[in-house]
Amino acid sequence: MSALAVALLHHPVLGRSGEELTTTITNLDLHDIARCVRAYGLQAFYVVHPYASQRMLAERIQRHWVSGAGGKRIPDRGRALEVLRVVPDLETACTDLSDGEPASVAQWTTAASAQGREVTTFAAARAVLEGTQQPVLLCFGTGWGLAPQALAKADLQLEPIVAKRDTGYNHLSVRAACAITLDRLLG
Amino acid sequence: MSALAVALLHHPVLGRSGEELTTTITNLDLHDIARCVRAYGLQAFYVVHPYASQRMLAERIQRHWVSGAGGKRIPDRGRALEVLRVVPDLETACTDLSDGEPASVAQWTTAASAQGREVTTFAAARAVLEGTQQPVLLCFGTGWGLAPQALAKADLQLEPIVAKRDTGYNHLSVRAACAITLDRLLG
Repeated sequence: MSALAVALLHHPVLGRSGEELTTTITNLDLHDIARCVRAYGLQAFYVVHPYASQRMLAERIQRHWVSGAGGKRIPDRGRALEVLRVVPDLETACTDLSDGEPASVAQWTTAASAQGREVTTFAAARAVLEGTQQPVLLCFGTGWGLAPQALAKADLQLEPIVAKRDTGYNHLSVRAACAITLDRLLG
Repeated sequence: MSALAVALLHHPVLGRSGEELTTTITNLDLHDIARCVRAYGLQAFYVVHPYASQRMLAERIQRHWVSGAGGKRIPDRGRALEVLRVVPDLETACTDLSDGEPASVAQWTTAASAQGREVTTFAAARAVLEGTQQPVLLCFGTGWGLAPQALAKADLQLEPIVAKRDTGYNHLSVRAACAITLDRLLG
């Protein structure tokens, strides 16, 4: 089993008209995804944001829960938020996950539609994870999802999450998409 | 396939010391769970709250997205929030789901630990859903989960969600737990 981590990107992601933009930190993204990352035993949860002020906000939220009043009140939440690592870009996340060899990390992306790209089924991805020693970084986009330039760099793109029966609606929150992805890979 | 819906209970649920209490509405619970309910094709998402003021709040949020400014800005969010039905108690939800025959509804509960109760695996529950015509209401608790009196009334309790490998941590948010449950039953 490889070293596996989640990266939540706030740039480059899409806005609702398909434009490329940078989103702000959402408090409950940090909580929900950290709790999933902890529950499924991943190595880390990288919160990736290019703005120093937004990274400071994420770190302040983390401190509140890990060493501040929040963690005293709800220790289980502190244990979850310990997995959070706030970084300016994916390169820094890959360097951290691989102990200094960022090129060794496989970047896997997620998206709500295949958009003509070759995708890998969850069953196949699960088998890859079980057989590899290569560190894997699972990348999720906020806003309307990862921008094409982020998807283009991927070593593997996971198939979109869909229900067994076609409902014509696949607009899950990134929190729900991450929970389901981790469960399909590690549940 | 039966009529299937989600109920999110704010009472009776547990607080962090195991006491029974009533929680307040969380905005992102409504969004995330409505989006999952819509994506997996369930019939409705019942937001169950005993306080009229809290029900008014949930209905106001719904109006903003279904017929107000929110829906004009993000139509996909409006389509999701349409599935929301705000009710004072489970009985009202069951009456609505069954077109007036609440006793015909099977109440299924979810919990982060089995607590000595007999639980049904997701695989078995999935098979039940595919073979039955009985309406099924999937009940989730906010706070620290459904109180024992809510679990005691269940026709079926689903097994706790756990990772394949034991990580010793199972404190998922109700949003993540609902997403994973729907995916395991209908994904």
